[in-house]
Amino acid sequence: MKSKSKPTGSITLPAEVGEEKMVVQLAKKWGADAIRDSDGTELSQDMLDLGLEVYSTTCLVRAEQTYPRLHMDQLPQKFLMSDPVTATGKTLVIDPMSGFYRDKYVIDLKHSAKKYWEVIDRTTGEVVPVSKWKLDPKSGKVTVNGCVPFHVYTVNFLVFQIWDTTSMYNHLTNNWDKPHVISVDPYHKECWDHLMKFYDKYLENHPQTDVVRLTTLAYHFAVDSDQDSVDKFRDWTGYQDTISVLALEDFAKEHGYRLRGEDFVDEGYYNAACRVPSERYLAWMKFIHRFVVKFGKALVDKAHKAGKKTAIFWGDHWIGVEPYLPGFLKMGIDIHVGAAEDGVALRRISDTPGGLVKELRLYPYFFPDVFREGGDPLGESVSNWIKIRRALLRKPVDRLGYGGYLSLALKFPEFVEHVAELCDEFRAFRDNSGGGESLKAPIKVAVLNAWGNWKPWINSFGAPQKFLVKRPDVIQVAGTNLLECLSGLPVEIEFLSFEEVEKKGIPKDITVIINDGDAETAWSGGRWWANPKVVEKVRAFVHNGGGFIGCRGPTAYQNNGRYFQLSDVLGVDKETGRTLQSAPVPVKLVNDHFITADLTGSADFGTHETFVYVAERSTQVIAAEGCHVMAAANSFGKGRSVFFGALPYDLANSRLLHRAIFWAAGKEAELKKWFCSNPLTDCAWYPKSRKLVVVNNSDQPQTTVVHRGDGKTSKASLKPHASKWMD
Amino acid sequence: MKSKSKPTGSITLPAEVGEEKMVVQLAKKWGADAIRDSDGTELSQDMLDLGLEVYSTTCLVRAEQTYPRLHMDQLPQKFLMSDPVTATGKTLVIDPMSGFYRDKYVIDLKHSAKKYWEVIDRTTGEVVPVSKWKLDPKSGKVTVNGCVPFHVYTVNFLVFQIWDTTSMYNHLTNNWDKPHVISVDPYHKECWDHLMKFYDKYLENHPQTDVVRLTTLAYHFAVDSDQDSVDKFRDWTGYQDTISVLALEDFAKEHGYRLRGEDFVDEGYYNAACRVPSERYLAWMKFIHRFVVKFGKALVDKAHKAGKKTAIFWGDHWIGVEPYLPGFLKMGIDIHVGAAEDGVALRRISDTPGGLVKELRLYPYFFPDVFREGGDPLGESVSNWIKIRRALLRKPVDRLGYGGYLSLALKFPEFVEHVAELCDEFRAFRDNSGGGESLKAPIKVAVLNAWGNWKPWINSFGAPQKFLVKRPDVIQVAGTNLLECLSGLPVEIEFLSFEEVEKKGIPKDITVIINDGDAETAWSGGRWWANPKVVEKVRAFVHNGGGFIGCRGPTAYQNNGRYFQLSDVLGVDKETGRTLQSAPVPVKLVNDHFITADLTGSADFGTHETFVYVAERSTQVIAAEGCHVMAAANSFGKGRSVFFGALPYDLANSRLLHRAIFWAAGKEAELKKWFCSNPLTDCAWYPKSRKLVVVNNSDQPQTTVVHRGDGKTSKASLKPHASKWMD
Repeated sequence: MKSKSKPTGSITLPAEVGEEKMVVQLAKKWGADAIRDSDGTELSQDMLDLGLEVYSTTCLVRAEQTYPRLHMDQLPQKFLMSDPVTATGKTLVIDPMSGFYRDKYVIDLKHSAKKYWEVIDRTTGEVVPVSKWKLDPKSGKVTVNGCVPFHVYTVNFLVFQIWDTTSMYNHLTNNWDKPHVISVDPYHKECWDHLMKFYDKYLENHPQTDVVRLTTLAYHFAVDSDQDSVDKFRDWTGYQDTISVLALEDFAKEHGYRLRGEDFVDEGYYNAACRVPSERYLAWMKFIHRFVVKFGKALVDKAHKAGKKTAIFWGDHWIGVEPYLPGFLKMGIDIHVGAAEDGVALRRISDTPGGLVKELRLYPYFFPDVFREGGDPLGESVSNWIKIRRALLRKPVDRLGYGGYLSLALKFPEFVEHVAELCDEFRAFRDNSGGGESLKAPIKVAVLNAWGNWKPWINSFGAPQKFLVKRPDVIQVAGTNLLECLSGLPVEIEFLSFEEVEKKGIPKDITVIINDGDAETAWSGGRWWANPKVVEKVRAFVHNGGGFIGCRGPTAYQNNGRYFQLSDVLGVDKETGRTLQSAPVPVKLVNDHFITADLTGSADFGTHETFVYVAERSTQVIAAEGCHVMAAANSFGKGRSVFFGALPYDLANSRLLHRAIFWAAGKEAELKKWFCSNPLTDCAWYPKSRKLVVVNNSDQPQTTVVHRGDGKTSKASLKPHASKWMD
Repeated sequence: MKSKSKPTGSITLPAEVGEEKMVVQLAKKWGADAIRDSDGTELSQDMLDLGLEVYSTTCLVRAEQTYPRLHMDQLPQKFLMSDPVTATGKTLVIDPMSGFYRDKYVIDLKHSAKKYWEVIDRTTGEVVPVSKWKLDPKSGKVTVNGCVPFHVYTVNFLVFQIWDTTSMYNHLTNNWDKPHVISVDPYHKECWDHLMKFYDKYLENHPQTDVVRLTTLAYHFAVDSDQDSVDKFRDWTGYQDTISVLALEDFAKEHGYRLRGEDFVDEGYYNAACRVPSERYLAWMKFIHRFVVKFGKALVDKAHKAGKKTAIFWGDHWIGVEPYLPGFLKMGIDIHVGAAEDGVALRRISDTPGGLVKELRLYPYFFPDVFREGGDPLGESVSNWIKIRRALLRKPVDRLGYGGYLSLALKFPEFVEHVAELCDEFRAFRDNSGGGESLKAPIKVAVLNAWGNWKPWINSFGAPQKFLVKRPDVIQVAGTNLLECLSGLPVEIEFLSFEEVEKKGIPKDITVIINDGDAETAWSGGRWWANPKVVEKVRAFVHNGGGFIGCRGPTAYQNNGRYFQLSDVLGVDKETGRTLQSAPVPVKLVNDHFITADLTGSADFGTHETFVYVAERSTQVIAAEGCHVMAAANSFGKGRSVFFGALPYDLANSRLLHRAIFWAAGKEAELKKWFCSNPLTDCAWYPKSRKLVVVNNSDQPQTTVVHRGDGKTSKASLKPHASKWMD
């Protein structure tokens, strides 16, 4: 009797030259239906002939390496700020490059420094007149005359980037000694033409390629390297590396005003994602985004013409792609690939609009940083997968994949075995869900921040992340991670910007607004909370019955006698040195609350000091450390609000947020529908296939009561990490 | 053989009616040479005849109680801000008094509300035109028309204070049921005349009084009481209760501009001592100070004319007195009395300029809050005395005293015994020091803040104080207390304001500047650090060889790309949500440093998270928790700087500060002169009497090496808390 063959497919395998046998073996074991090359690897003819779908990677702007060396004025540019120097006399010599890696950047001597550079007195904030400084093109140093002694000066200067950031990372991480890769900027017409010609040839030369995997489009995300090649700034979503003088000039023509170096340098903060974006910087982003979409569309059109599909990888040169913006779908990409280590990353892919095939590139990447003696790829994969699966219950993706050197993975047989099970489990989701989504509660959450659909499902790292003593091989979020808690909850979720609220108000279908992030960052909103229109609309929303959940520095902006601008809604405010001599409303802990009903013991808020105090007598403090409020609930008109001092990701806190959302929405009665009593377990009901899945998110056996949609309950027992499907 | 009689004197005893025998007994036991009455107690003829010097208290503005009841428009006024109310429609009715204690305040219906009150839209910060609101004098409510829905509104309104703050405190604390005491404002000519007449009679009626103890002058410090009589705001140094419409008008005439209610309400922050004072508010303080000096001088002159001395008690109605301002000495007061619970309070008295007799009123006060079953007056006294004695080594006072009900103290015989020893020990200091000060190192420290000589030796409470779960009967400083550490160090100390630095620069004799306090408070300086003149001068001072010590939020003000404006000097900066994506210089701990040389184990900085990172490569991190810098040292030009994340008071931290000052001053070689190797002990050398005292500040026996001024050392062993004199 022949056993029924197991379901296969939906898996992309990284191939490795000279390891054909292994590829065949693993493709079978993991049920892969596609292979891909990786950065630094190629597919051999034998592999192309395996009968699997073939993904071929092209990193266009960093592919061909003769052109950039002949056109050094078409490399990506950027504005850097010299490390600040304190004048001790009237003359100051600044070497702008002294704090930067000279193998990566050269100063731009092609364009007039007097036109594009700025020397700034950082004690007064004033720009030093160009007549008072000069650049010595030989030494690259700037001499400033007529300084005010003991003022601090910086130079905003333009550089060309002579070493691609990813190439540099790979060189340093893997001790490569290949020639440095140089990227080019396709904004230059000549460069664009060159790339298109190269790409045409590439398509011709890859007849067996089914999918062109666009690992890069036009611009790399920002990583700045200090004099010792160590990262000094990093913004995975930032436009810092999209500059060219040509684009600056085109922008000026189009907008009627010229951007300054300082618009990019931003007092040295470089418009990082954590910064509330200025209108001018946003205008630049829109300008570049339009260009990138045009570039991407040209590449997709050519691939389609050649009978191939295209995939985009949310990776290195992805700046300008922004999959939640309308421009993304205009490009016509077929497959959307993103790396995922947790539920937030899963949702970043799974929630993107449009009918694209969605594929996760799982961690760990098969690289020697994890796949080394003493490394724990299995542990990392299990921990990642449990978080990803939790979010997968809410929004599915179509495929999984891996990247790197397969030979490295094979040295860890337990890992190989585990991936096989993981692929089977993923396919069980695919097959049992009937292609539909699980049922959500009648609640729609809007995460409100300064970025909205520019940066949904991007971790809003807070200050604790900066002070984390990092383990190099594991992605870790310190301090607070509300988004991860949120990623697995059975509610609809969207991202909303303050600009949208200001202009269009809060969409009618929103039930609960979440404002989560460190004070005075783009994530909590900073100066947007001094905008009366925003404040009016959010207050009216809650007063009329909406829910509001704030975490860490919600609505925080020092203005008009408060720090939390919605302290009347939240019922709490934060001490910032202005009310040290004012008494807060005393903390009286409410012991029984809907929100904390599933809590056994006390929650871990990741901090002992919030410096948040009770500001309204109506506030119900539901968790506190001494007088520091950790969590509070309040009513405001017909609506409700909840405050969390911080919300590190764990299953207990996820349950807190789960209940907080239902409480804030006034939908307590809806909670126990497709709901597990045990917070370490979770379930999802797929109405299309009429199937229920129950999962155990813990590493211990668990028993749970499952509340069905009709009010009936049943019991389920699950092994550690197990999932169980029921009709 | 008759034993040599013990030295006596320098002690003031509180007398109590009907307890003459006890007074005699304790006067002998404690060696008292003066008696005083206390609030609520009187001296009988028998007591007056004991042969002791007699201090008689007069609390002039709250003494006679018929006048205020007949002149309710001459009571102290103040501007209050109604609790903020959020408009939900176009009309809003605000009861300004709803958040305040109606037994304490009545709204001012005498003066035009439209002229003096302000309704403010706290969402935009705009003043609502007077045409849009009206006050109903019957209900005391304000109706605002044409509100913007979901904006927040407040009313700044004038009240008369119908219950004296101290009277109210005593009533509530001791369950008194006497009639409420009402204070008056002598700014009104009629009231002044009334008080002077009353005072003349008082002098006449107290022929046996040697010292008129002016417990009050004109204005009480601010304590605002909420609707339930609970303190909602407190400022022991604040001018909030010095308002009268008459003074406001006089001020306007003198200055050519009129102060608004908002100048006092200050967005609801009420110009608390922690707030950086505005120029307008400072002008008001100067104006009132001048008046108080005039009032005080009139009282002193009359007493002198009557052949009596005067004492001022730094107590309840002391606002406008400010003993470090030049005006103080103009009053001609003879004896300066202040309550003291620690070294900071001792220094507050001992350092005041002028040749006045200085007397400490020690804690605990003989009141039932401490002198009750289960109370620990002995423990409190010992703990206080050790701190006071430590500071006394550096700056002496002339007398000690107590206050309250003597009969309560007698119920604690161990306490009585301990006070006897304490008085003897104090007199040993008096007699052995030869009337001179102990020798200081050739270092002069300036504590730089926004108040300078307005508020020297005032505890700069930080945010942890607000979140402290308080023990009601003990004065406790939470989080950080650099001043207490400083109070016992063998250096010269003065207080310096930013205004002085801006206008006159840093005095030539200053060796080290200390900037200590929470970020954005008057103590650290807030917006003063955006003043280029201040920044230039402090930087130049350090660059030319000066020392700079910053604690908690030194030089903190968000401006021009930094938070710590002197991050180049300090070598560290603080994360405020703007550099989350920038990498700091990695923390590498320096294990051996001059500053930490006496540290056994790790110091207690009272916090685990400073969010302060290394900003300069030259920075030496000398203490850290993970990546959070707790203490750091840096060089800047010829000078040096030290940063402390916080500095709670203990003997180890005092030693840290001791060494930090010497290191910052570049005077390491001067450290071991009249210096104890054991940080739990201390010594002082009195050059006038050529005597050395060694003290044990711990509750365990201690041995220490004493380094003398000539480089020689000797050993000393001391019992717990003991002091030992040597020639």
